[in-house]
Amino acid sequence: MKISVIHGPNLNRLGYRDKKYYGTNTLPEINKTLEEKAIKMNIELETMQSNYEGEIIDFIQRVAEETDGIIINPGAFTHYSYAIRDALADCTVPVIEVHLSNIYSREDFRTKSITVEVCNGQIAGLGIQGYLLALEGLDFLIKQNKG
Amino acid sequence: MKISVIHGPNLNRLGYRDKKYYGTNTLPEINKTLEEKAIKMNIELETMQSNYEGEIIDFIQRVAEETDGIIINPGAFTHYSYAIRDALADCTVPVIEVHLSNIYSREDFRTKSITVEVCNGQIAGLGIQGYLLALEGLDFLIKQNKG
Amino acid sequence: MKISVIHGPNLNRLGYRDKKYYGTNTLPEINKTLEEKAIKMNIELETMQSNYEGEIIDFIQRVAEETDGIIINPGAFTHYSYAIRDALADCTVPVIEVHLSNIYSREDFRTKSITVEVCNGQIAGLGIQGYLLALEGLDFLIKQNKG
Amino acid sequence: MKISVIHGPNLNRLGYRDKKYYGTNTLPEINKTLEEKAIKMNIELETMQSNYEGEIIDFIQRVAEETDGIIINPGAFTHYSYAIRDALADCTVPVIEVHLSNIYSREDFRTKSITVEVCNGQIAGLGIQGYLLALEGLDFLIKQNKG
Amino acid sequence: MKISVIHGPNLNRLGYRDKKYYGTNTLPEINKTLEEKAIKMNIELETMQSNYEGEIIDFIQRVAEETDGIIINPGAFTHYSYAIRDALADCTVPVIEVHLSNIYSREDFRTKSITVEVCNGQIAGLGIQGYLLALEGLDFLIKQNKG
Amino acid sequence: MKISVIHGPNLNRLGYRDKKYYGTNTLPEINKTLEEKAIKMNIELETMQSNYEGEIIDFIQRVAEETDGIIINPGAFTHYSYAIRDALADCTVPVIEVHLSNIYSREDFRTKSITVEVCNGQIAGLGIQGYLLALEGLDFLIKQNKG
Amino acid sequence: MKISVIHGPNLNRLGYRDKKYYGTNTLPEINKTLEEKAIKMNIELETMQSNYEGEIIDFIQRVAEETDGIIINPGAFTHYSYAIRDALADCTVPVIEVHLSNIYSREDFRTKSITVEVCNGQIAGLGIQGYLLALEGLDFLIKQNKG
Amino acid sequence: MKISVIHGPNLNRLGYRDKKYYGTNTLPEINKTLEEKAIKMNIELETMQSNYEGEIIDFIQRVAEETDGIIINPGAFTHYSYAIRDALADCTVPVIEVHLSNIYSREDFRTKSITVEVCNGQIAGLGIQGYLLALEGLDFLIKQNKG
Amino acid sequence: MKISVIHGPNLNRLGYRDKKYYGTNTLPEINKTLEEKAIKMNIELETMQSNYEGEIIDFIQRVAEETDGIIINPGAFTHYSYAIRDALADCTVPVIEVHLSNIYSREDFRTKSITVEVCNGQIAGLGIQGYLLALEGLDFLIKQNKG
Amino acid sequence: MKISVIHGPNLNRLGYRDKKYYGTNTLPEINKTLEEKAIKMNIELETMQSNYEGEIIDFIQRVAEETDGIIINPGAFTHYSYAIRDALADCTVPVIEVHLSNIYSREDFRTKSITVEVCNGQIAGLGIQGYLLALEGLDFLIKQNKG
Amino acid sequence: MKISVIHGPNLNRLGYRDKKYYGTNTLPEINKTLEEKAIKMNIELETMQSNYEGEIIDFIQRVAEETDGIIINPGAFTHYSYAIRDALADCTVPVIEVHLSNIYSREDFRTKSITVEVCNGQIAGLGIQGYLLALEGLDFLIKQNKG
Amino acid sequence: MKISVIHGPNLNRLGYRDKKYYGTNTLPEINKTLEEKAIKMNIELETMQSNYEGEIIDFIQRVAEETDGIIINPGAFTHYSYAIRDALADCTVPVIEVHLSNIYSREDFRTKSITVEVCNGQIAGLGIQGYLLALEGLDFLIKQNKG
Repeated sequence: MKISVIHGPNLNRLGYRDKKYYGTNTLPEINKTLEEKAIKMNIELETMQSNYEGEIIDFIQRVAEETDGIIINPGAFTHYSYAIRDALADCTVPVIEVHLSNIYSREDFRTKSITVEVCNGQIAGLGIQGYLLALEGLDFLIKQNKG
Repeated sequence: MKISVIHGPNLNRLGYRDKKYYGTNTLPEINKTLEEKAIKMNIELETMQSNYEGEIIDFIQRVAEETDGIIINPGAFTHYSYAIRDALADCTVPVIEVHLSNIYSREDFRTKSITVEVCNGQIAGLGIQGYLLALEGLDFLIKQNKG
Repeated sequence: MKISVIHGPNLNRLGYRDKKYYGTNTLPEINKTLEEKAIKMNIELETMQSNYEGEIIDFIQRVAEETDGIIINPGAFTHYSYAIRDALADCTVPVIEVHLSNIYSREDFRTKSITVEVCNGQIAGLGIQGYLLALEGLDFLIKQNKG
Repeated sequence: MKISVIHGPNLNRLGYRDKKYYGTNTLPEINKTLEEKAIKMNIELETMQSNYEGEIIDFIQRVAEETDGIIINPGAFTHYSYAIRDALADCTVPVIEVHLSNIYSREDFRTKSITVEVCNGQIAGLGIQGYLLALEGLDFLIKQNKG
Repeated sequence: MKISVIHGPNLNRLGYRDKKYYGTNTLPEINKTLEEKAIKMNIELETMQSNYEGEIIDFIQRVAEETDGIIINPGAFTHYSYAIRDALADCTVPVIEVHLSNIYSREDFRTKSITVEVCNGQIAGLGIQGYLLALEGLDFLIKQNKG
Repeated sequence: MKISVIHGPNLNRLGYRDKKYYGTNTLPEINKTLEEKAIKMNIELETMQSNYEGEIIDFIQRVAEETDGIIINPGAFTHYSYAIRDALADCTVPVIEVHLSNIYSREDFRTKSITVEVCNGQIAGLGIQGYLLALEGLDFLIKQNKG
Repeated sequence: MKISVIHGPNLNRLGYRDKKYYGTNTLPEINKTLEEKAIKMNIELETMQSNYEGEIIDFIQRVAEETDGIIINPGAFTHYSYAIRDALADCTVPVIEVHLSNIYSREDFRTKSITVEVCNGQIAGLGIQGYLLALEGLDFLIKQNKG
Repeated sequence: MKISVIHGPNLNRLGYRDKKYYGTNTLPEINKTLEEKAIKMNIELETMQSNYEGEIIDFIQRVAEETDGIIINPGAFTHYSYAIRDALADCTVPVIEVHLSNIYSREDFRTKSITVEVCNGQIAGLGIQGYLLALEGLDFLIKQNKG
Repeated sequence: MKISVIHGPNLNRLGYRDKKYYGTNTLPEINKTLEEKAIKMNIELETMQSNYEGEIIDFIQRVAEETDGIIINPGAFTHYSYAIRDALADCTVPVIEVHLSNIYSREDFRTKSITVEVCNGQIAGLGIQGYLLALEGLDFLIKQNKG
Repeated sequence: MKISVIHGPNLNRLGYRDKKYYGTNTLPEINKTLEEKAIKMNIELETMQSNYEGEIIDFIQRVAEETDGIIINPGAFTHYSYAIRDALADCTVPVIEVHLSNIYSREDFRTKSITVEVCNGQIAGLGIQGYLLALEGLDFLIKQNKG
Repeated sequence: MKISVIHGPNLNRLGYRDKKYYGTNTLPEINKTLEEKAIKMNIELETMQSNYEGEIIDFIQRVAEETDGIIINPGAFTHYSYAIRDALADCTVPVIEVHLSNIYSREDFRTKSITVEVCNGQIAGLGIQGYLLALEGLDFLIKQNKG
Repeated sequence: MKISVIHGPNLNRLGYRDKKYYGTNTLPEINKTLEEKAIKMNIELETMQSNYEGEIIDFIQRVAEETDGIIINPGAFTHYSYAIRDALADCTVPVIEVHLSNIYSREDFRTKSITVEVCNGQIAGLGIQGYLLALEGLDFLIKQNKG
């Protein structure tokens, strides 16, 4: 089983961003933790981060046919990138949206996700743990679909 | 460690409700699965379901000081019960909101949760699996807080 | 044939409420008139009234499988009880919403019914006569479905 | 007793329109059923249909002083014809608005009736039966007023 | 000098409509008063009334090139007939909109005139006197333009 | 008969303001024209202009009991001075609001008058002529009331 | 004289809730202070608290005819319980709404009270003192009405 | 193949209307150009223009079963005639909406078409050429459907 | 202890204004009653009334450092004077906003107070009694702060 | 004559996307069809596709001075890319916006195009045929401008 | 060159207001700093402050023809004084609006300036330095216009 | 001291864009003027321009730790790029937003800046001079912070 993980804009700065919302872990640390868990779950993991909306769309299009599921934290793109939304909507594999912070108790603009509407589900507010749970959740969804 | 699980209105009808959104599991089945996992995680589990907003508030107030964390699926109360929101806001233990379906891709009124604003986080759209992940997530949050 | 009639909050005060909107009949009088007509139509009638949203949901869930149709005047719950709406949406039998007054020519908040969206139809503004017409209408719908 | 029935735009196409919402009866069939019932109730019935807003206003003005009550299905005019609304508001006889389909569970624009605000009441979602119930309801209102 | 006066829907019922808003004069009486004043002012007057939006547009188009000015009380069309608005916008002669009642202190929908935006001005709330003042005002505008 | 005329903020700059909207007449010229007409109509005229909301309220309060009617062009106060609105609402004599320009075809904020709601009527878009017509209209209203 | 005091949801947790908004007094302490003052004012006091909307409606209906006035702090129900609003609207005795905190300087949803519209008045932001002032105010209103 | 072309209100005034938006061609010239092209494409063309909403609905209903496709420029009806929308929605043949001007860069009210929602597509802003392209497009759609 | 009382625009007309909302007392009577109570409570009272926003701001700024608390009825300024709001926000002494009528059950514009957001609390709908209660409440707040 | 064709994000996936909206043609097929028609019309064609907003802006800027017209299908950028809008607004050559599907009868967010406001016109809902018609329309506009 | 500086309501309290937003400088200190810089730039400076909207309008009208440019910090009037806006719009000399704090990151009501729409530009969030930069900017604009 | 200057999309076309809003200077000319002033102020200047949102985010992230302050004209990104906003919010150095034109008196969408909320301040409407003033302002802020 192969799972692709997408980190959106500014997430490469984790560890340096507002720790109240994003915690102290850097992105490489998060990816390392994810990979360790993936190995245990017998999952092949591919991760990417980009500040370019276009690069994220290219990536989604490329993996759409070779991956079994997608975990995406679209960062600020969550709130306005209808182009990423369209790319995700074109995917047939399951997609889980993850947010480190509880986007529903912050600024007004963060309370509306336009991308989650075309995802299977969302995990928000659980920090790095959210990614790990998404991995489990996605594993479950994929096996369920295949079952 | 003790965790309290609250199922809101109409969730006692799971298995009989629209399967497209809520799956085929009945509430006793869901609770049984949760309890099995809780035992493995060494967690004491208390579950309740009610169609009465007042009963849910009473329950939250009662467990607020004796439980270590709350998992709540407020059902339709998610969208208008400011009284439950106030009860949750008064809790000092961590709270995770769970929704079986992806509430963001259904009717308009379901896309706004007023209770999640005072929770730690939310897991939506992952069916029964969402409860299990919430258990793990809550376990993590509680240990992190205590750590 | 069995039909269940639900009277929402404050309708137990009919006859004492603003007569301009609600007329002079008390609830027992309305129920008596309904029962007399039901007998003539060979319908078994069950009526209930409650000021508790939870009690109404419990009732809907209980009758959902043993009744042939529901007449509901949700009172003020018409405008915000998504929990009752969910309970009604889970019913497979036909449901008609009744309002004594013309809710569309009163205060702003009364002009939006969130429950009617999951009912078969609505009769509003015809006073006690509205209940009697709903009985006929429901009788027609049930026979049509069965036909 | 004399009752006037007004069918708004496109209702002359009943039977050919979307059967999911409007049923299979043609307008002549509906009128025939209405007339049969009217005869039994000793009511003189006058029906008209028009795609012209102006013709409907002319008709309302003409019958306003010679009829005892009006049943109107304003069709799409329900949602924007303030001119018909004004004509109805000028009537002193009772008026019942009828809709074949449940306008509250269709497109957004159909959920707002501007004409019902000046009617006595509304029956919606009960198909052809709605017209028959309106006849009964109107008969009741007229006798009550005269009583 | 020639001036055309347009009375919109339901204004043929003046004298029979709600006297609180529309006064006791009938339309023929209003037209007669207008004509008497017009004769004194050496103005040729043409008046029309219609409940048909299309007939009003036809009339505006016809007189647009032969009249010197238009007085229009669009009745309820004031609030939604963009077609009449377009017809008025195509006129090069001055246009004054008249309302018998103060439309700004009645129902919400009456406080927005979409036709006045393409008129020269508006007189509202002064009853039949409003028409007479409009005649004077239009006379002034026409002479000013010609001057 | 005595009539009071109130000119709101910036109207002392007429003749120097944007001529497209406000014409070329200065305020003294407008007042002179008004006075000439008033003399002919046997009306005693009192005019005032102020850029101070408080001064206008003081004036309205002072004349409320000694004048027979008020003509007011509240200038920009038209759109937000609820204090002037309250002062006008407390008057028992008739009030006509005048605007030189057609406020309904300019900036968005000008299309909403909060003061007209408590006036008898409004004349807009007819330039200096609007004041003269208001004088006639007010004369008519006063005599009608007294009649 | 008899006065009934209603405390809405979560107010049984006073003293344990956010002290910044709700102060340090427990509900029994508040009731005790109220009763002491009531005795001095020769008022018979009945207090109740409930987390159940239905129980509050039942209570209002019951006391409506035997009490002389009502003090209600509807808690979160302030913002959405149209059913309680209807129950209060049906009361003929005076009602004062009390809030411990200044609900107008907190979260957005708290700034709109739907229940105050059918009360005589409101006292907000004065803590426990607000209840005592309400007692005085109600005493005054009752005597004034009776006077 | 037969195609019906509908021109809405005020389009009979083309050539005399604001040339910036509508060009210099008169309606007979446009129809002539359309007919010349239709002959070349072996299409039988029927054109109509009306300022009456009702007449347009009558026409749509009449041709609905004998034409192969409809080109409609609903003029100002584009923005509010739900009755024409309903008539178009009842058609099973393809419909293309045409606007001479770019309605999206003019007044606010013109940017919302309520009729296009039930058409196959729209061509806007290309002047008379838009009609010719619509003819080609419709020809293509009809052949595709029949193919 | 010194308390300053501010009466906003048009409140100098109390006794002459709409008695339904404002009662029959004149402002001097209200001030006299307040002073009598103040003397009993050993409070030095300073009262002012103005129709000028600027004069009220000047007054607030002047007393801000020499008074112990402010009672303000901002009249219509309640709904739009952000300048008075800023002046109040700059005060460090407690402020109570008073309204004679229940502003929440009148016109729409009166239901939003922008000044209360920076006050300690509000008393509304209790007539002249509201001022007396505010005096007590302020006395309590001041002593509490000093305590 | 030279025409530039821009395909926005995800359009490189045509043929694989939801066929209900986008048809079965791949982008290379669409471009080939366009080129064949262009050759017949003696037009030099340049096409590009990008998922990068920046790349599309670079392209528009580059061709702005060397091309004779632009056909653009901005994909999801249609709804939020004010940067592309600015780039198009800076162009002096004619621009036609094309959409394969009827964007006005899909999700809410798709019904608002912010880019069309600075284009000459729009063709929507006609599938691949829309591009071909745009080519003709643009050819016409260019020749007209040059003529 | 002569420049006029206007300080709006409550700015006379600078140094005593919330230092987080407004800094520690008093208004006399700000004016002194401005005058020192003005002298160096060979600019004659006139400053005023008022809590009266009317006084500010009077001042603008007076200096409009004798000054070369205006710097205005309208304080809270920024958000609702259409009367000051009109006065500024009537000025032909350049105007720069200055705010000490970043009004866009504070309360909602402060994020909308209605006066800046008729100014040349705005400098916000740079404290006292903002005034000095405005002086330079205005000097530049004036010379550019004269150049 | 080092300052970084960011020019957003389409600003590389300055001098060729609408001169009414953007002036006649090209971007190299603006940068040259900025550099000349920077040299005088002993500031090291780094400038960049990009039409790619991602490239701007990369740049902000790179300079965030090595520069002393940022001047940014986000162009159209001002109105929707929450990703750039997040990048700016993560910066600890001061940031000033600059706009050549007065964005508050142009199209509606330009009047809302989402990026300024996380900047220190904004200078708008002063053309190229705005950049020079921003340089001074930033110099002042940096020295003040360091002071």
